[in-house]
Amino acid sequence: MIPRYTRADFARIWDAQTRFKIMFEIEAHAADKMAELGVIPKQAAAVIWEKGRDAVFDVDRIDEIEREVKHDVIAFLTHVTEIVGPEARFLHQGMTSSDVNDTALAVQLSRATDILIEDVDLVLAALKKRAFEHRLTVTVGRSHGIHAEPTTAGHFAEFQRAKERLAMAKFEIATCAISGAVGTFANVAPEVEAHVAEQMGLAVEPVSTQVIPRDRHAAYFAALAVVASSIERLAVEIRHLQRTEVLEAEEPFDPGQKGSSAMPHKRNPILTENLTGLARLVRMAVVPALENVALWHERDISHSSVERGIAPDTTTHLDFALRRLASLIERLNIYPDNMLKNLDRLGGLVHSQRVLLALTQKGVSRETAYAAVQGNAMKVWRGEGNFLDLLKADPTVRPHLTDAELAELFDLGYHTKNVDRVFARVFGEQAMAQAAE
Amino acid sequence: MIPRYTRADFARIWDAQTRFKIMFEIEAHAADKMAELGVIPKQAAAVIWEKGRDAVFDVDRIDEIEREVKHDVIAFLTHVTEIVGPEARFLHQGMTSSDVNDTALAVQLSRATDILIEDVDLVLAALKKRAFEHRLTVTVGRSHGIHAEPTTAGHFAEFQRAKERLAMAKFEIATCAISGAVGTFANVAPEVEAHVAEQMGLAVEPVSTQVIPRDRHAAYFAALAVVASSIERLAVEIRHLQRTEVLEAEEPFDPGQKGSSAMPHKRNPILTENLTGLARLVRMAVVPALENVALWHERDISHSSVERGIAPDTTTHLDFALRRLASLIERLNIYPDNMLKNLDRLGGLVHSQRVLLALTQKGVSRETAYAAVQGNAMKVWRGEGNFLDLLKADPTVRPHLTDAELAELFDLGYHTKNVDRVFARVFGEQAMAQAAE
Amino acid sequence: MIPRYTRADFARIWDAQTRFKIMFEIEAHAADKMAELGVIPKQAAAVIWEKGRDAVFDVDRIDEIEREVKHDVIAFLTHVTEIVGPEARFLHQGMTSSDVNDTALAVQLSRATDILIEDVDLVLAALKKRAFEHRLTVTVGRSHGIHAEPTTAGHFAEFQRAKERLAMAKFEIATCAISGAVGTFANVAPEVEAHVAEQMGLAVEPVSTQVIPRDRHAAYFAALAVVASSIERLAVEIRHLQRTEVLEAEEPFDPGQKGSSAMPHKRNPILTENLTGLARLVRMAVVPALENVALWHERDISHSSVERGIAPDTTTHLDFALRRLASLIERLNIYPDNMLKNLDRLGGLVHSQRVLLALTQKGVSRETAYAAVQGNAMKVWRGEGNFLDLLKADPTVRPHLTDAELAELFDLGYHTKNVDRVFARVFGEQAMAQAAE
Amino acid sequence: MIPRYTRADFARIWDAQTRFKIMFEIEAHAADKMAELGVIPKQAAAVIWEKGRDAVFDVDRIDEIEREVKHDVIAFLTHVTEIVGPEARFLHQGMTSSDVNDTALAVQLSRATDILIEDVDLVLAALKKRAFEHRLTVTVGRSHGIHAEPTTAGHFAEFQRAKERLAMAKFEIATCAISGAVGTFANVAPEVEAHVAEQMGLAVEPVSTQVIPRDRHAAYFAALAVVASSIERLAVEIRHLQRTEVLEAEEPFDPGQKGSSAMPHKRNPILTENLTGLARLVRMAVVPALENVALWHERDISHSSVERGIAPDTTTHLDFALRRLASLIERLNIYPDNMLKNLDRLGGLVHSQRVLLALTQKGVSRETAYAAVQGNAMKVWRGEGNFLDLLKADPTVRPHLTDAELAELFDLGYHTKNVDRVFARVFGEQAMAQAAE
Repeated sequence: MIPRYTRADFARIWDAQTRFKIMFEIEAHAADKMAELGVIPKQAAAVIWEKGRDAVFDVDRIDEIEREVKHDVIAFLTHVTEIVGPEARFLHQGMTSSDVNDTALAVQLSRATDILIEDVDLVLAALKKRAFEHRLTVTVGRSHGIHAEPTTAGHFAEFQRAKERLAMAKFEIATCAISGAVGTFANVAPEVEAHVAEQMGLAVEPVSTQVIPRDRHAAYFAALAVVASSIERLAVEIRHLQRTEVLEAEEPFDPGQKGSSAMPHKRNPILTENLTGLARLVRMAVVPALENVALWHERDISHSSVERGIAPDTTTHLDFALRRLASLIERLNIYPDNMLKNLDRLGGLVHSQRVLLALTQKGVSRETAYAAVQGNAMKVWRGEGNFLDLLKADPTVRPHLTDAELAELFDLGYHTKNVDRVFARVFGEQAMAQAAE
Repeated sequence: MIPRYTRADFARIWDAQTRFKIMFEIEAHAADKMAELGVIPKQAAAVIWEKGRDAVFDVDRIDEIEREVKHDVIAFLTHVTEIVGPEARFLHQGMTSSDVNDTALAVQLSRATDILIEDVDLVLAALKKRAFEHRLTVTVGRSHGIHAEPTTAGHFAEFQRAKERLAMAKFEIATCAISGAVGTFANVAPEVEAHVAEQMGLAVEPVSTQVIPRDRHAAYFAALAVVASSIERLAVEIRHLQRTEVLEAEEPFDPGQKGSSAMPHKRNPILTENLTGLARLVRMAVVPALENVALWHERDISHSSVERGIAPDTTTHLDFALRRLASLIERLNIYPDNMLKNLDRLGGLVHSQRVLLALTQKGVSRETAYAAVQGNAMKVWRGEGNFLDLLKADPTVRPHLTDAELAELFDLGYHTKNVDRVFARVFGEQAMAQAAE
Repeated sequence: MIPRYTRADFARIWDAQTRFKIMFEIEAHAADKMAELGVIPKQAAAVIWEKGRDAVFDVDRIDEIEREVKHDVIAFLTHVTEIVGPEARFLHQGMTSSDVNDTALAVQLSRATDILIEDVDLVLAALKKRAFEHRLTVTVGRSHGIHAEPTTAGHFAEFQRAKERLAMAKFEIATCAISGAVGTFANVAPEVEAHVAEQMGLAVEPVSTQVIPRDRHAAYFAALAVVASSIERLAVEIRHLQRTEVLEAEEPFDPGQKGSSAMPHKRNPILTENLTGLARLVRMAVVPALENVALWHERDISHSSVERGIAPDTTTHLDFALRRLASLIERLNIYPDNMLKNLDRLGGLVHSQRVLLALTQKGVSRETAYAAVQGNAMKVWRGEGNFLDLLKADPTVRPHLTDAELAELFDLGYHTKNVDRVFARVFGEQAMAQAAE
Repeated sequence: MIPRYTRADFARIWDAQTRFKIMFEIEAHAADKMAELGVIPKQAAAVIWEKGRDAVFDVDRIDEIEREVKHDVIAFLTHVTEIVGPEARFLHQGMTSSDVNDTALAVQLSRATDILIEDVDLVLAALKKRAFEHRLTVTVGRSHGIHAEPTTAGHFAEFQRAKERLAMAKFEIATCAISGAVGTFANVAPEVEAHVAEQMGLAVEPVSTQVIPRDRHAAYFAALAVVASSIERLAVEIRHLQRTEVLEAEEPFDPGQKGSSAMPHKRNPILTENLTGLARLVRMAVVPALENVALWHERDISHSSVERGIAPDTTTHLDFALRRLASLIERLNIYPDNMLKNLDRLGGLVHSQRVLLALTQKGVSRETAYAAVQGNAMKVWRGEGNFLDLLKADPTVRPHLTDAELAELFDLGYHTKNVDRVFARVFGEQAMAQAAE
């Protein structure tokens, strides 16, 4: 986790204390069920909870033990014995390290994902608010970076998909496995697993082979990568709009802020450039997560070091990026005047399609009509006149379209006629009704 | 598409003729609705279908036109005019290239995914058949490649997830966009889009910005990559089992087959090694698909060349891999005798956990019991005796466990006691009942 | 290989006939040396060359044999026997398939790389020509897409590095291994390897373990990926410059070309968008190439399917991209007038740094000077005046800088003063002298 | 940086204090040259060094300033002013943030790479030592995991290439750019750059466009990724050798160490599994590093967040992995007895090639000889006899090979005859001579 891209609240999910607390709860819930099943004494389970429930784990001590035994879960259990006393020997009966580690990871990832989903809600709220504000703001549509036709924009639907993807991603990884060595339940009853799953808010893993299968985690990090790419798309859009030559939108620039150490006049889109980079950071977890799937036989531990890196880093950076994005959209400066100015820049060329269609409607073949409209358009590109005037003077166009018809074809209002329809698809009829009030 | 990893049936989805046929259908269905809406003459739509429905498109001719106009959809439409005649000018009214291209791609990817799902069904059927066959075959569980404890194996659940992922992936990309330039429906009615979607078996894209948003395709290829990794995991498992020293399973070796140009005795796991490589090929589409998401503004065309490569290649290679995998599992040689031999190899060490647990149950602390069991195990590793005998002679163990108790702890049957329970989770109660008959 | 991104000349390197010819040469050269060493009859080697030198290999026949023996090299050798007759039994003595396959791949990759290096030379020549043409064309420098300061551009140095990387990449993979099964030279003498290497223009692989180690190929594809990214950087630059609002450069637009199926006025940067996509395609080989390195033991064959895809595809698409780039730069339209217009757009703000520096030179602290210059710049952003006038009226600036000094600070000529120096660094003194003539 | 995979010595390169010290030195060296050139007072440069040379930078204070000005380099310079006093205004004259940031990164990466190269030297030394120790230890060669022929192993050459790749990688990124805004040297003389480069042990960047071009860093991280893959290959080899069924080598297992929380008998290859995972972590930097190349125009800052992650993490984890690998090889347990046992496992099948070759030498066609040898080999696989006996009884083999000839073909010594030759290629004649003493 890069400190400057880490929110303290979020980071807490991943600190050692939180992790040991979750591990303790898994062991203690398992003990409860074992006690109920008569595998261990009821008294033992009670003592375990009593002494451990509010314990603060000594992270340095655990590290010290691990340096000797070279095994993280044994180190943890040894320290728990120091806290709980002799009853601790009834912990972990028939269980294996993966039972604790994988289930703990599932809890941490679930909690992280819950926050990520809230983050996306913030982005959605900001997008919705600004979209309604500018529902009828006309801006030029750009395909290939070249002015195309007027449009209004919407990233809302993409972030709705992002939300669904995160919900699916959580579903993928929120499973609990307490199945013992190589996953056979030889020494631990399936009822223990069911109980721990319920207590920790997880589903039961149908077949674990000692580890929870890593295709789940690969799918999880892939989902996060797609969300990151959606962030990048919106960030790139804003970076384009803030270019000096375009300047249709601009990131907030705070009092006291300095844009450049050398050039005092600069106001750079640093937040969206940063989001572009963060998207790359989040995405890079996909490949190692896919490589983690093919563990050898029932398990190996090659995935462990990878996940120690990507699980906290990727979720934390994505959380930061989503929050930054939400706040940025909320405060984005939008310049409708510049939008109109840019729209006019091509001297009416953006209406070329409507002229083409009108001509074909009047009986001109598609090829002839295209050639005529394109020919006049190229003159405009070369600075040889105004598009409407050229069309009026064109011998192919003239016979088919009156001045009034041509004028109508150059009317901008035409392009916003379906805005409400598209908005209703995306935001729902209810939001439309509220907006209409 | 690498020819040797391509099934002809599957490849047909991606050939130029199929694509042009789909493009024609999209245009013609759109014309139907436009005719109904009075935008174009009803007669025109009728002629278009009549002349084009069974047309064979001249791929070379289209290429020739494209070399001049440098635009693939215009080349196609020009050729359609050659087939359909003047009524062709009523095609593509208010539409843009992406409407046709993206919707055609959605149709192709949908068809491909339908087959991939069938492929997974073949894998599932083969896995289920072999799993029931060997339900009670005991094999050693291996964690870290080191003998752990007896187990029976199950990849079935993972491929069930693969099937769900493919279904979701299809859902992601099976959308139709006919929204015109920069996606505003300025010159094409949303009803046209709805009609084409229905006819082509797709959903309507809620908001297209001229293109169907590429986060969908990124999610699609990510899903395929996860499936590929599941293939790799199973392939790696078989490769391990076929090692000379292990030899618990072996790929079918056909009469006439030669294993090595140099060494006539060789029988190599070439199919599963090949599947490992194919998994890498399928996975490599993830990164460019993620990079395709952030198109500039309403669209650019940087994604196009990428998809011309990865869409056919990735689906085709995955189809090939799944078929190969299904057939391989169906015919995999399994050697239960070798499994038992390997299981015995560590002289009973695989039962160490049960002894540890039994000692803690008798009141020995976890740490003391662990040290005693581990100490004897290390002697076995060094070849200094048989595990059971050493335990019987051990002063820490002796007082707590009788010979009979120890013998019981070394009973293999213990480890298959939960097989039916796990099978029922995965295959369902019904399959269990059938198997029981 | 995607046909539309494949040059026929280049593709020939990768066709089956070429490959079989190379394989034959490797076997025949090996036979020569074995004959010289007395391992096989001299007569046999002579017959092999005589019958095989100009043979056309029957690719379908080889495929047919492979379907039976399931081994590609054996299929090839069996067909060679059909051509050469009984002496063919002296071929491949003590050799293994990898000897032939890996060495053949080395030859193909070497030839491909030679052409790629020529391609980069074309790019360099085009860049150099256009750079000298526009040596003194002033364009605004943009950091963060925001006008910064005047600059002249140079991608030449980056493509010089690309050339060096390709040369290194060739060096990495141009090795020959003829070391027999598991690489021990047990049944083939090292002299054979040395002879084949020399004949085929390769170095001897110091230690092969049956296969040529794949870290070489990973390094190779990584180098190509970096070159692809350099292409992308230049492509993205041109896409930016061609934006409607910027329009400082434009891709050639040919007579007959059509920019959009819907909008006849469009002139899109389709070539550079295509190059952006091709860069992604080329780059995607990096991950599987890295995953190919860790072959099991002396070899497995998981790398083979990967390389059947990425070796031809990646080199072919990179060749296409480099050629397209060279031709594009050669013919790129450059609009110096628009450059000047854009440079003026910020009303002199681009000179803010020089004012800042002048003030600190006069004794004003960095912080005070920055605040003063930034304050006036923000007024210009808000449309509240001309930068020079505002500075003249500013009480912090006024006492330190005369009108003449300020005017001098706004002089554009100042920014090209080091052009010759930078050019000399990049193109060399000789090129400068020639340009001066 | 994941703490458990971080050596404190190495991490120091990346801490904030080190970075600020380097940034100060860059600024101060630049000031020296500016003073010499008369751009700033000599006295100023002297004061800067005097007050700043041994300064401890207050990292919290710098963070605090950054929160206000939202610019990291300005925050640093403001703090330097607090330390140095008014003369600090002469710092950073005509320079821009990238000059300091990129050059500082070059220094850090250079130092990191120097240590990585030392690390590889440790690996090489360990490999060499163990290789000579076991020069004549015969182990079975395995292709496809299937016994092939006897071999001796060597990863030494691959790590020699790793060392060269790291040296090249350092060469790529060890450049200094002090060229001012958008890289034109408008306000800073090239002499300043040359002086700083020399003082900081870097080369001059021929053309920077404000930033040092990121193709260099992409090449750098790609090189590290290849090295990581070489580590993975060796790690995977050891994991295979430590499998229970193979057990030809084993990681050191320390007194006190515990292999499993559940199973006291386990001795897992946890170090090499960990190295496999670390290799994935190191490799994942490749994709974002490649995506960083195409910065917009003269620069944007999207690369910055990526590098804040991957630069320290990747180098630190690679350092840790190399050290762990060196120590592991040094202490690896090798079991020659098991090697011989495994070699015998296939009942002589590993000699099949020699029999095949001998038969073709005696005039039998390749196809006939292959069929005969393969037929007998398949019987051995099926447990139907001993290979040598079967061959002696075979009517195709019998007439051509005497018992003595066959016995000679089964001689293991044959396979080590070229060991010295291969060793000389890799380790050099000198090492051979020393070993012979």
